[in-house]
Amino acid sequence: MTTEFELIDKLSAAFPPPEGLSIGIGDDAAVLDPGRFDLVTMDTLVEGVHFRREWCEATDVGWKSLAANLSDIAAMGGGPGAFFLSLALPDPVDLAWVEGLWTGMQEASRVLVPDSFEVSAGGGDISQTSGPIVITLTMLGEASPAGPVLRSNAVPGDRIVVLNTPGRAAAGLAVLQSDAVDAKEYEELVRAYRRPCPEVRAGGLLGLAGVPSSMIDTSDGLLQDMGHILNASEVGARVEGFQLPVAESMSELEDAEVGCVEDWVLGGGEDFCLLMTVPPARMPKLWDMARQYGWEVHDIGEIRGPEEGLQVLGLDGKPLDRQVDQFRHFEAS
Amino acid sequence: MTTEFELIDKLSAAFPPPEGLSIGIGDDAAVLDPGRFDLVTMDTLVEGVHFRREWCEATDVGWKSLAANLSDIAAMGGGPGAFFLSLALPDPVDLAWVEGLWTGMQEASRVLVPDSFEVSAGGGDISQTSGPIVITLTMLGEASPAGPVLRSNAVPGDRIVVLNTPGRAAAGLAVLQSDAVDAKEYEELVRAYRRPCPEVRAGGLLGLAGVPSSMIDTSDGLLQDMGHILNASEVGARVEGFQLPVAESMSELEDAEVGCVEDWVLGGGEDFCLLMTVPPARMPKLWDMARQYGWEVHDIGEIRGPEEGLQVLGLDGKPLDRQVDQFRHFEAS
Repeated sequence: MTTEFELIDKLSAAFPPPEGLSIGIGDDAAVLDPGRFDLVTMDTLVEGVHFRREWCEATDVGWKSLAANLSDIAAMGGGPGAFFLSLALPDPVDLAWVEGLWTGMQEASRVLVPDSFEVSAGGGDISQTSGPIVITLTMLGEASPAGPVLRSNAVPGDRIVVLNTPGRAAAGLAVLQSDAVDAKEYEELVRAYRRPCPEVRAGGLLGLAGVPSSMIDTSDGLLQDMGHILNASEVGARVEGFQLPVAESMSELEDAEVGCVEDWVLGGGEDFCLLMTVPPARMPKLWDMARQYGWEVHDIGEIRGPEEGLQVLGLDGKPLDRQVDQFRHFEAS
Repeated sequence: MTTEFELIDKLSAAFPPPEGLSIGIGDDAAVLDPGRFDLVTMDTLVEGVHFRREWCEATDVGWKSLAANLSDIAAMGGGPGAFFLSLALPDPVDLAWVEGLWTGMQEASRVLVPDSFEVSAGGGDISQTSGPIVITLTMLGEASPAGPVLRSNAVPGDRIVVLNTPGRAAAGLAVLQSDAVDAKEYEELVRAYRRPCPEVRAGGLLGLAGVPSSMIDTSDGLLQDMGHILNASEVGARVEGFQLPVAESMSELEDAEVGCVEDWVLGGGEDFCLLMTVPPARMPKLWDMARQYGWEVHDIGEIRGPEEGLQVLGLDGKPLDRQVDQFRHFEAS
């Protein structure tokens, strides 16, 4: 018989001893080193909504739960630290699945987190549920000495830049949902959905260099997340969708009627690209960094005055005259 | 149509502007004032496991979710601060229920939290689920200037002290589960289950005064939580159950075969009493504080050497020769 406490011990053992905490797992609360962490984010994955067990291994789910939080910290231009995990698990617990979850979290930590940061388990809570698995992760992070990069500091004239190509995770999910194509032929897209790679290193370096005026990750999809920046900064924007590359495999899938490339690119969530605004004077620095670190960077438009709202040119260069099918967390009626 | 973002705005509006945070809800991560918070705890409530909608109003559930986290911070001898909320809600969302949840959280904050601390919503995440409601709350807190009170510093000779009477929440739950009695006649016990009152003020004052050598809240039940202190401190203990008062209503319920008083008192969880160890030299200070603040304090035994293990005298004063029916979060086979 395995108890909650044993499962938490195993999680604890899967990660390095927590750094930045004097007390981790095993007391009523964790005790942080004074002044170490100043960022907090929280993300939840629900089975059947954010993942399905027939489409994702336990390791993929573990990877994704860590990746979503790493991406939020990266979007603040900061570096990740200790995390706290709440798991609601069906009874009886599938121990192999839970150990897969730990493994996926460890893999994500090893692959995605540069050596300059240490991600570790600071605490957790495991409960039973009669329903689907629910995983909530709270992650602490450190803003760069230059301060956190917010959503609210974009100003007219700033360039709009995306690091990496949005839409691949949404295309990968469409492949898994479709009976019309063989998932094995689109492994790269399926992998983008199962094992998204947030820009942990790039986020930290951009924050440190003070390059972006504002930043967000594209967890909700490019246009929706652009909207979050516009609302927070009280500005408008012109977004040129045609500046974004489209993988040949995605066009093939559109031809096979699996879905719409433009919806994936402009509306698909969970790629965890970084969407930022950059003052023109800092663009040379950004291009330098992109060359130095091998980043794929796309200049996709300009911040405008608030009266201009959000103008979007589609992948064909024409004004977008339709609602893009957007990533939805949630709606209540 | 109400979106995730609107629900989070309502939660935000229900609490005072966050103190100790320069950025709260509305960015990728919250930004904390440097050095303000050094405690982190996380607790999850699952519908059907930790609460049932037929036994608890939404306001009760909101109260309890905040209370469980407040209790953890109190058990560290600290004071509560910003919290982060993750909600997994069935589709379509019952907006009245969610607003009740906010209300209950506000009520708990108003009633349980002394003016010297400010509890506010720092962020959150709302998801859909096809299953029961899952509520995860992460709370930040501040240890007292004297440092956090851990589980690991009990030493042989320390007195074992309980603040408040354990067992009432478990008796209240038994009333709700039973067909044999009328819940209206046991309102006080039912209320102890629905609206547990953690010792937020007392925990902070005890931490500040440096009275306890170790402390824990009785969320898992007296003996189980005593065991956590013994394991962490590597000591034994003699616990005298007969030192604890038993409400007349609880004896009545035992007579009506609703349950076992001794199980409730020694094994029942979720009262959120404070269980602490106190060096004998500091007992006079504790009695002074109890008089000054009107605390109900019970000296229930002594910390011993590790070789003595956990010796328990039951409510009748005789050595306990049976397994107490304990509060269980979770077991996997």
